[in-house]
Amino acid sequence: MAVDSRFYDHIGPISLAEIASLTGAKFEGDGDVLIQDVAASHSAGPSEVSYYEGSKAPTPSDVSPNAQACFVVEKFADALPPGVAPLIVPLPRYAHYVAAHSLIRYRNWFDTGPDDGAASIHESARVHSTAVIGAGAAIGDRTVVGPHAVIGPGVQVGRDCQIGANASVQSALVGNSVKIYSGARIGESGFGVMPGPDGATDAPQFGRVILQDFVTVGANSCIDRGAFDDTILGEHTKIDNLCQIAHNVVVGRNVLMASFAGISGTVTIGDGVMLGGRVGIADHVVVGEGAQIAASAGVFREIPAGETWGGIPAKPLRQWMKEVAWLNRQIEVSKKK
Amino acid sequence: MAVDSRFYDHIGPISLAEIASLTGAKFEGDGDVLIQDVAASHSAGPSEVSYYEGSKAPTPSDVSPNAQACFVVEKFADALPPGVAPLIVPLPRYAHYVAAHSLIRYRNWFDTGPDDGAASIHESARVHSTAVIGAGAAIGDRTVVGPHAVIGPGVQVGRDCQIGANASVQSALVGNSVKIYSGARIGESGFGVMPGPDGATDAPQFGRVILQDFVTVGANSCIDRGAFDDTILGEHTKIDNLCQIAHNVVVGRNVLMASFAGISGTVTIGDGVMLGGRVGIADHVVVGEGAQIAASAGVFREIPAGETWGGIPAKPLRQWMKEVAWLNRQIEVSKKK
Amino acid sequence: MAVDSRFYDHIGPISLAEIASLTGAKFEGDGDVLIQDVAASHSAGPSEVSYYEGSKAPTPSDVSPNAQACFVVEKFADALPPGVAPLIVPLPRYAHYVAAHSLIRYRNWFDTGPDDGAASIHESARVHSTAVIGAGAAIGDRTVVGPHAVIGPGVQVGRDCQIGANASVQSALVGNSVKIYSGARIGESGFGVMPGPDGATDAPQFGRVILQDFVTVGANSCIDRGAFDDTILGEHTKIDNLCQIAHNVVVGRNVLMASFAGISGTVTIGDGVMLGGRVGIADHVVVGEGAQIAASAGVFREIPAGETWGGIPAKPLRQWMKEVAWLNRQIEVSKKK
Repeated sequence: MAVDSRFYDHIGPISLAEIASLTGAKFEGDGDVLIQDVAASHSAGPSEVSYYEGSKAPTPSDVSPNAQACFVVEKFADALPPGVAPLIVPLPRYAHYVAAHSLIRYRNWFDTGPDDGAASIHESARVHSTAVIGAGAAIGDRTVVGPHAVIGPGVQVGRDCQIGANASVQSALVGNSVKIYSGARIGESGFGVMPGPDGATDAPQFGRVILQDFVTVGANSCIDRGAFDDTILGEHTKIDNLCQIAHNVVVGRNVLMASFAGISGTVTIGDGVMLGGRVGIADHVVVGEGAQIAASAGVFREIPAGETWGGIPAKPLRQWMKEVAWLNRQIEVSKKK
Repeated sequence: MAVDSRFYDHIGPISLAEIASLTGAKFEGDGDVLIQDVAASHSAGPSEVSYYEGSKAPTPSDVSPNAQACFVVEKFADALPPGVAPLIVPLPRYAHYVAAHSLIRYRNWFDTGPDDGAASIHESARVHSTAVIGAGAAIGDRTVVGPHAVIGPGVQVGRDCQIGANASVQSALVGNSVKIYSGARIGESGFGVMPGPDGATDAPQFGRVILQDFVTVGANSCIDRGAFDDTILGEHTKIDNLCQIAHNVVVGRNVLMASFAGISGTVTIGDGVMLGGRVGIADHVVVGEGAQIAASAGVFREIPAGETWGGIPAKPLRQWMKEVAWLNRQIEVSKKK
Repeated sequence: MAVDSRFYDHIGPISLAEIASLTGAKFEGDGDVLIQDVAASHSAGPSEVSYYEGSKAPTPSDVSPNAQACFVVEKFADALPPGVAPLIVPLPRYAHYVAAHSLIRYRNWFDTGPDDGAASIHESARVHSTAVIGAGAAIGDRTVVGPHAVIGPGVQVGRDCQIGANASVQSALVGNSVKIYSGARIGESGFGVMPGPDGATDAPQFGRVILQDFVTVGANSCIDRGAFDDTILGEHTKIDNLCQIAHNVVVGRNVLMASFAGISGTVTIGDGVMLGGRVGIADHVVVGEGAQIAASAGVFREIPAGETWGGIPAKPLRQWMKEVAWLNRQIEVSKKK
């Protein structure tokens, strides 16, 4: 995995034997191979370690044959592609997390690397004296940063942007003419929880947030960074206040989301989609281009392009409206009896 | 329009000919007339420019006959009141926004006007050393402002108020004994999105927020300023955490809103209304005095005074409860078959 | 009531006669008795004053016989346990609040007591230079506090914690390895509104927030402190962004809540419960251990341990799914007619 070195430091490599030792993994083979990085199982490459945690034996598309090693439960160890060294553990994802701690370090406010220079702030930018700009961050021409805003280490903000008061931005690449209103939270760690030996454990999140040109993010809205990949909002997409966009969500261009939109992990939303207030979308759902979703809807499955849906669970709007009207009539009829 | 000069600077006037040139409008008549201000179409007056963007020809109540000029699409140009100069463009609202940029400037942290003195802070007020108070703002007797709070330029805060940590207030007039809890966002730009030539574009918001005496706003709640008019919360109205109140909403006195209330633009809520948790109300809806709305309801139409409603879409509570019970019985019956 | 002296100062005692005078209460008996504290009616003890505001006469379990005095409406005065002095007023809860103001003072940023020393920050902790740490607060080993974070007076934060940018924590005891992401609000005053003589009035909140080890709280989430008791989150419980947890809620261990969870006052949630996105739970509801609640559900009554529920109002998931499918079929049938 190519973690972005502006946000993460590689602190390895360490040998496969050491990784096995750190994680208590059963392991056979060449322990001297050096591991540099962690990766998702489908995309891992040489000198990278991944994990497999499905409930069925992995298929060829589940685990990249190029991975150096893969944490896996004992019963699936033989199902890994040849050449991928199995690291046998009871909790593969947790072991991967433990290994990650020895390979990658999130660059926070205190762990500045040797190459981190001062932030680069264009002379025409206007940054309030109380704003905090991290090492290695860049602020473009004419961009305005409000009081008590926090721009994390390495964050790149383009030209003509507005960052509101008390907003925070980390692990993010921000285009031009982007507005981030007060109190918005860009680039926090997403909600990925896994079983650990002592209880629920936060899975580490290694990705970024990409906000393309002319995106607007409302006050107190949250856009989490990706887990391995990125969370992306396309050009001219407009997000109202108090919305939540989880890790790995990909939103197209000119998408409008009213307040309390809740977009779960790995959702894909096509160009021009419109969401009414407090629409929730379950994880991995795809919403096709130009679809419209009525306020209060709870979306649990794919919405085809151009359709209008509503209700909980969401369905085509006409169907929902008919059901609402029909149910209403049944009760009116029984009142008359 | 009388924008509040505490929050906005007039930077015009400019001639009608210049406005036509800036916006690419087709225009006939006296180009030397000076325009001072932008306004909503129904209330525009002399030396003000408005826009009309309905899908039908404007009626007399849609466009004020006193407006100096009005952006309009070609087919409706002849339907404007006599005396209102048509500025013919394909995107009237967008053109109006472009014109507004040359007439009105939002007073941010950096554009302080020549008359902006220091903030006026009463000697009995207690303002944390890390709070930021903008030019021309006023803080009343015994009011407490917490750490990292941000009070924008020109904001007026009355006596005996509490402003929580990391809260921000802009474009607002705040009465006495008002509490704004930590992280609340008062006076942000509302969610008004219009089509522009290159994609979705934020409509400018020129209004204010008015919080009357004894209002309480919960942590991380958001109350947007009005578009042309004001967003108003009446005396003793109490808002829980994480609520959203959009532009131009008018809330009466003694209204209670539990968490996640989502009040869309231009909603009117009467005195004494009670909203359960996460109630959503669609834009332009009127909720009558003393109405009660059950938790989770999604309100799409007017609720008469004194009634109790629930469900999505919301309906009188008794009707909703009967529908829920009846539907439940149908399934139980079919289980027995 | 034993208010925590790290967060509240006792500023009494005052005599019962003075309390009667302050609140306009009718009162007979020994006016010289000293009152030290306010308390909830079921748990009040000697030298404490409580209130009773039920619509029926109090039963023995409603009012502790050990209370020194109790605000009560006239018609229920004789129903108090013998030995509890009745303070007769039209609005008992409001009178209790007035009395509380003379007995207890919330320790804010400016009212530091004589014993408040500087904050105690472990030498291995890393606190950003812009963070604000209140008097008497403690920050444990290796804990990281981000820019513009605010840790209130007396707050105790354990070892290996992370406090995000612009987050605020007050009236809270925070265990070890707890993460509080950016913009989260811990320990705000809960939403307790009571009638006062001039309109809706905020009831004072005297409790705390307890976050046990390995709790994670997402960005911009809010966890209110208890009214008289505490709000508690058990070990390894993980809360996503933009969640609301009201006063007196008790959450077990290893509970997962996705975004927009709205947990109303005095709810109890058992160990291992899982909440999908934007689940709302009405006040006083009990959710049994290991229950699972589908996204968008609105829970109005108890959920037994181990069950899976969904819908608004929530019911067992199978029942809800059947209803959804059956209703859908009715409409399809009538389409064919």
